[in-house]
Amino acid sequence: MWADRPWFRALPRQVANRHAFCRTRAAIPEPGGQAHSDSLPAELPQEALAVSTAPSHAGGVAAPADNAAHPHVLTDAEIFGAHEGGKLSVHPTAQLQTARALSIAYTPGVARVCTAIAAEPELVHRYTWTSRLVAVVSDGTAVLGLGDIGPRASLPVMEGKSALFKAFADLDSIPLVLDTTDVDEIVETLVRLRPSFGAVNLEDVSAPRCFELERRLVEALDCPVMHDDQHGTAIVVLAALRGAAQATGRGLAELRVVISGAGAAGVACTEILLAAGITDVTVIDSRGIVHVDRADLTDVKAALAARSNPGGRTEGLAQALHGADVFLGLSSATVSEEVVATMAPDAIVFALSNPNPEIHPEVAARHAAVVATGRSDFPNQINNVLAFPGVFRGALDSGARRITEGMKLAAAAAISEVLGDELDRQHIVPSALDPRVAPAVAAAVAAAATAEGVAGTVPAEQL
Amino acid sequence: MWADRPWFRALPRQVANRHAFCRTRAAIPEPGGQAHSDSLPAELPQEALAVSTAPSHAGGVAAPADNAAHPHVLTDAEIFGAHEGGKLSVHPTAQLQTARALSIAYTPGVARVCTAIAAEPELVHRYTWTSRLVAVVSDGTAVLGLGDIGPRASLPVMEGKSALFKAFADLDSIPLVLDTTDVDEIVETLVRLRPSFGAVNLEDVSAPRCFELERRLVEALDCPVMHDDQHGTAIVVLAALRGAAQATGRGLAELRVVISGAGAAGVACTEILLAAGITDVTVIDSRGIVHVDRADLTDVKAALAARSNPGGRTEGLAQALHGADVFLGLSSATVSEEVVATMAPDAIVFALSNPNPEIHPEVAARHAAVVATGRSDFPNQINNVLAFPGVFRGALDSGARRITEGMKLAAAAAISEVLGDELDRQHIVPSALDPRVAPAVAAAVAAAATAEGVAGTVPAEQL
Repeated sequence: MWADRPWFRALPRQVANRHAFCRTRAAIPEPGGQAHSDSLPAELPQEALAVSTAPSHAGGVAAPADNAAHPHVLTDAEIFGAHEGGKLSVHPTAQLQTARALSIAYTPGVARVCTAIAAEPELVHRYTWTSRLVAVVSDGTAVLGLGDIGPRASLPVMEGKSALFKAFADLDSIPLVLDTTDVDEIVETLVRLRPSFGAVNLEDVSAPRCFELERRLVEALDCPVMHDDQHGTAIVVLAALRGAAQATGRGLAELRVVISGAGAAGVACTEILLAAGITDVTVIDSRGIVHVDRADLTDVKAALAARSNPGGRTEGLAQALHGADVFLGLSSATVSEEVVATMAPDAIVFALSNPNPEIHPEVAARHAAVVATGRSDFPNQINNVLAFPGVFRGALDSGARRITEGMKLAAAAAISEVLGDELDRQHIVPSALDPRVAPAVAAAVAAAATAEGVAGTVPAEQL
Repeated sequence: MWADRPWFRALPRQVANRHAFCRTRAAIPEPGGQAHSDSLPAELPQEALAVSTAPSHAGGVAAPADNAAHPHVLTDAEIFGAHEGGKLSVHPTAQLQTARALSIAYTPGVARVCTAIAAEPELVHRYTWTSRLVAVVSDGTAVLGLGDIGPRASLPVMEGKSALFKAFADLDSIPLVLDTTDVDEIVETLVRLRPSFGAVNLEDVSAPRCFELERRLVEALDCPVMHDDQHGTAIVVLAALRGAAQATGRGLAELRVVISGAGAAGVACTEILLAAGITDVTVIDSRGIVHVDRADLTDVKAALAARSNPGGRTEGLAQALHGADVFLGLSSATVSEEVVATMAPDAIVFALSNPNPEIHPEVAARHAAVVATGRSDFPNQINNVLAFPGVFRGALDSGARRITEGMKLAAAAAISEVLGDELDRQHIVPSALDPRVAPAVAAAVAAAATAEGVAGTVPAEQL
């Protein structure tokens, strides 16, 4: 029906002309398309990654190349076609087809439910969709690798996120994109909207604003709030690092970790690794090692400096990585093969910059025992979808008022434990599509919420 | 799955104890239930309506009593059961089951779509759900007949409204209930959220705040905004009045109309009736006729006084109704049989107070040629669902930037025209469930938007 709208119908040619909407499917990568290969040749130079950015059919782990000479290509036609009209739809779950059904779901029957909630506000959890509804909130300031493209251009990502909430955790979700980047205004807006949802997933908000925004939302809202780019990433990184340590016969606490990147993910990963018992973490930003004697640090980085870099290093990445056990790449800065070669034996390299890893994973593998990336066309994909659906499902299932550090640690442990005997150096985390993950994470998070005393409680006389 | 949640499971007994959740279905009306009869005995006193508030199976028109001794009763168990977990669900429309599908709908494919929208903001209409998404917005200050019960308790109504948008017009819709009643703050909030939706349906906001709120939102937002309690009601009232005039062989313009109620619906009905060519409209509020010499009028009522009451009456309802052609009841004030008996021959009585009409419709019918109510268990139900789904669908289909008076008049005409030869004194409007109505209204509204120059336009070179 939508295609009948005259102003809507006028758009396709515009798109065809300017965005290659009608470009035919090609068998080889082209600059306007997204390459989709099952695996890359081992000796491909770094630049080759730039045109091959899509996951393979095989899910989160690399599959053998079944036809390496003709990699699958995601064409613009396929991509834009799949996004036509958006990616979400709202459906009634109540019957509405007869006057009687209508009189139950709407007036006059609904007045009974309204009256009950007015008398007893807690009933809103039972008789509205809010107890399973996540608001996916963004201001569009740090969208994927695209930067500050604004709220409208961020919406396809937020719709995708909502779709993933449904697909992986059976949670309802609405994208709310905001035409303001002011932290005060975003907080104020969500406080006013508080009765409309059950949890807030912050998404693609730029650092360092994201730290203050999340902190203030957690204070202001009596519901789970999580910035996924921080904590979703941190949870999956911790799970993967535990898997890598286990696969190489070490304990997590004995690893010396170097993190490249002090943005949203870098800060949150540092925090969760320290919370998980790792004592030697060094963080690098664009000016070198984040250390206590630097005068140019933001408040967040100064706090980071105080809790990290026990070796007291003051130079840069090469110095930090010398003899280190783990490289965790969370920025677009590259790292050379020569530097990786100086790491400790059985080194672990997580090159998570997307779509172009900090070092080609097959180059890193010459010197490292375990290599992970953000891409599904190589082994060990670090994908946030392993965490956020189950985390929010567990938090909402338990009626949690907030998401604690303990709940995040429990989520990471649950992801690791799904693999069991399947764990090896090529499989340190489950596939992003593994259906066992979200339920396991949800159960662990709900249990942790109860253990930490943040779960919803019902007065004893009502039990 | 939701029933597994411990805090959730603890709620039913609470409800059972305090809200008669587990009350068994009864065959006769009882004070705690909603009576649901196919028709009421002709001589029932006014009070009998109070326990019989639900529509019949037969839809918008009264059906013969098939078993008047045992009317169907809506029990609390049925009502609360139907609202359990809320009434809405969000579904992905894109494929997500394989890594390849995920790479199209989410990263990395989605980045192509984001980039295209960033370069050409108009594409947001094509590649997100916002061009068919209505935000159903309320602050919970005037919910049904329940008054100011707050945003949380209003949510079941807003979910119902969203469900109706889907069922009748295939529009997606999200309830946004606000924890503020400040007009400035509501406007500010929706301006910030503007990129998230395509239209705003204001709902259940109290008068006179609703007038300023709607006016300011129309100014602030470049999308369709309509307060349904005002204009949805006005559109259906005009359609019904046109039908009643036709069924009694008169022209609309020659009717003398008395409106009881100067709230949201009363003001909007006055405006649309004047716009439709009726010249003699008199409005009554709780202090009598709204006339220019009264010193106690709000700005809105003073404007109303200036444009109505051409007879210069200054007393009350009885004086106004003497010899009038139309009584339009839009408040909870009752009108006596004696006063209705003084109306002109072939009088038209719309007793729209819900659930209890201003006069029992069968009592009114002793003196009036046409009687309408807000209830589906009597003939001629005036139900907003005849208007709002088609109005918003037509506005969104045409890419309209606002909803004009011409679009409202076109909607009213379209509702009337659906009936054709089926129109008679017992059928002055179509049934609320008539599937012909919404498409007819949408087409008429879209055409009017184009005719009035508010439809979306695409530069000629792109056509």
